[in-house]
Amino acid sequence: MASPLVISIDAMGGDHGPSVILPGVQKAVQALGAKKVRFLLHGDEAAMRAVLATHPELAGCCELRPADSVIAMDAKPAHAMRRGKGSSMWNAVESVRTGEAKAAVSAGNTGALMAISRLLLRTVGNLDRPALVANWPTMRGATSVLDVGANIVCDAERLVQFAILGAAYHRAIHRVAQPSVGLLNVGVETEKGHDDVRSADKVLRSVGLDIDYRGFVEGDDIAKGTVDVVVTDGFTGNVALKTGEGLARFFRAELRKTFTENLLARLGAVVAQGALRRMSARLDPGGINGGPFLGLNGIVVKSHGGTDAGGFATAIRMAVDLAGSDFVAEIARNLSLAPAGDFEPARERTVA
Amino acid sequence: MASPLVISIDAMGGDHGPSVILPGVQKAVQALGAKKVRFLLHGDEAAMRAVLATHPELAGCCELRPADSVIAMDAKPAHAMRRGKGSSMWNAVESVRTGEAKAAVSAGNTGALMAISRLLLRTVGNLDRPALVANWPTMRGATSVLDVGANIVCDAERLVQFAILGAAYHRAIHRVAQPSVGLLNVGVETEKGHDDVRSADKVLRSVGLDIDYRGFVEGDDIAKGTVDVVVTDGFTGNVALKTGEGLARFFRAELRKTFTENLLARLGAVVAQGALRRMSARLDPGGINGGPFLGLNGIVVKSHGGTDAGGFATAIRMAVDLAGSDFVAEIARNLSLAPAGDFEPARERTVA
Repeated sequence: MASPLVISIDAMGGDHGPSVILPGVQKAVQALGAKKVRFLLHGDEAAMRAVLATHPELAGCCELRPADSVIAMDAKPAHAMRRGKGSSMWNAVESVRTGEAKAAVSAGNTGALMAISRLLLRTVGNLDRPALVANWPTMRGATSVLDVGANIVCDAERLVQFAILGAAYHRAIHRVAQPSVGLLNVGVETEKGHDDVRSADKVLRSVGLDIDYRGFVEGDDIAKGTVDVVVTDGFTGNVALKTGEGLARFFRAELRKTFTENLLARLGAVVAQGALRRMSARLDPGGINGGPFLGLNGIVVKSHGGTDAGGFATAIRMAVDLAGSDFVAEIARNLSLAPAGDFEPARERTVA
Repeated sequence: MASPLVISIDAMGGDHGPSVILPGVQKAVQALGAKKVRFLLHGDEAAMRAVLATHPELAGCCELRPADSVIAMDAKPAHAMRRGKGSSMWNAVESVRTGEAKAAVSAGNTGALMAISRLLLRTVGNLDRPALVANWPTMRGATSVLDVGANIVCDAERLVQFAILGAAYHRAIHRVAQPSVGLLNVGVETEKGHDDVRSADKVLRSVGLDIDYRGFVEGDDIAKGTVDVVVTDGFTGNVALKTGEGLARFFRAELRKTFTENLLARLGAVVAQGALRRMSARLDPGGINGGPFLGLNGIVVKSHGGTDAGGFATAIRMAVDLAGSDFVAEIARNLSLAPAGDFEPARERTVA
C-alpha cells in the first residue's frame, strides 16, 4: 500500500501539552524527511488550533481529533481506566486498537497510559503487563535494558518473555540482525543468583527460541555493551536505570566543578568545550527520550512528561521505526515457542 | 588500657600475596602516625621474611605467625571451611575469635573469607550471613550502600537488620552522629514496590529503633547523597554497584576520548589535567578499597584481591576505625529491639 504511515498523538500529554507536543511533531516531520507520515492529533480543539496557527506547515500532515477531556498527570491508573474514556490519551490508544493508526505516542501520566493501553490493546501471550525498555548508552553504542519498572516482581517465565520482547525491540530500533541477549545476575556462573534467574537461564539455553542468548551478565556489562539486550526484573532494572541517571548527573556536576576550580582549568574547559558538549550528551542512561510498552498487541510509546519538542520528536521517530518493523508478529511467534510448562516452580527463592 | 590495638593480617591473601600486603601494612603504619597499632602477620614464614627484609621499619610493630597453608583465590567456600584450618586466612580470623586481635583484614577469596568468618565468629541476631557494604561517592560525600552481594534473597526482617548494621557502620567510619537511612525502592510513596520493602518500611517507621529512618529512596538518590545509608537486598545492591562501576569506567573512557579528539581538546586536557585527575579519583563507586562483613561477632574487612599497597592500607585503616568504635555493641543493642515477630508474612510478593 502506498498510503502513508499513521501515528496517533496525545496532544495534551506531558507537562506543557500542545505547546511542546505540536512543535515536537513538526521536528519529527523535518527529521523524517521524505518518509511520509500522517498524524492524528487528539486533544482540546481550541488549544491545538492556537498552536497550529503558528505552525502552518503541519496542516498538510495532521488531522485534529477533538477529545472531551485530559487525564491529569497525577491521576491514579484505576481512575484513568474507569473515567478516561473520551480523553486525548484514551482516544490516541483507541486509534491503534481500531487499526486507524499503527502507533500511539503520549507524554502523559505513565501509569494511566499503561492501564489504558492494557485495557484497549491487551498484552500478548500471558504477560500481565507490558515491559518498559531503556536505551542505555554504552562503549559500543546502545544497549536495551528491560524491564525498567513496569513489572516489579518477575518469575522465570516473565524473564524469558522479556528476552523475546527485548530482542525484537532491539532489532527493530537498532537494525541489528540478531541481537545478543544477556540475563542480569550477580555473577556469570550458572549457579549464581536466585531461583528465578537460574530457571530462566536454563529455559533460554534449552528451548529453541530464535534468540542469540549469551547467559548471565553483571551490572558492569551494561555500560561495557557486552550484549545488545539486558534482561532483568522491573525492580532491579528500575534501580539500575535510576542509579545510572543519578551517577551521570553526578559526573556532570563534578566536571563542571572541576572546570571552574582555578583559572587554568577554566581555560582548559573553554578550549575543550565543543568536545565536552558532545560527550555530555552521550552519558545519561535516561537521556534518550521515548520508551515503548513492549508486549502489547499494538505500539504505544511513552515520552517523558517533562520533555521538550526535540525529545518528543525522538519518541515519535521510535514509534515510526517500530511501526515500520515486523516486531509485533515476531514477538508473537517467539512467545508461542516458550510454553509456560517448561518452567520449574521457583516461587521460594533460594540462594547460591 | 594503654596496650596498642592489634590487627590480624592475612599476609598471603590477594593476587600478589606478601609482596603487596606487607608494603600495604607499612603504608597504613605511616598513615596512622601516632596511633599505635600492632599487626599479627599470618602466612608463609619464608615468603614474609623475604619481603620484611626490605621493610626493616615493620619489625617493631609486626609479629610473624607462620601458617601451614594458603586458601586459593578460586577455592570453593565449602572446601575452605572443611580444609582451611591452619591456613593464613583461617588463622587471621581465629585471632579475632580468641580476642588476641580486634579485627582481621584479608585480600583473599571472598567466599572463603565469608564462610570462615561465619564459622569462627558467628553472626549476630539471627542473620544468615553478614552483609557487604559499599562506600559510594556522592554529591555530599559518601553513602554506605548495603547489602551489595552477600545475601541474594532478602525478606523484610533482613532489610531491617541491614538498616541497623548500616547505620552503625556509617557512624563508625564517617563519624556522623546519627546517620540518615533510606530503603531503596522504585518510588518513594509507601504503596510502591513489593511486599518485602513495604513490610520493612512499616517496621522501620513503627518500631522504636535508634535509627534516623527517612523512608523509601530511589536509585538516583544514591549519587545525590539524599541519605547516609541506603539499604537494599544483595541482588539489587550488587547490580547497582556494578552498574555504577561500569558507568564510571565508561565515563573515564569517554573523557579520555574527548580530550584526544582534536588539537584544541588535547590542549584543554593538558591545561586542566590536575583538576581532572582529582575528579577522576572521586567518581568510582567501587574505587574505595575495603569492605567489612557487617553483622559478625567481630570485625573482618575484605580488601579487593587485585589491590595495590595503597588500597590495602585503606582497608587496614577501615579495620582500625571499626575496631576503635562501639559498633559491634551498638548493632547488638539495636538488633534486640527489632524482634522477628513484628513482621508480616511476606513470602509471596505482590506488586503495587
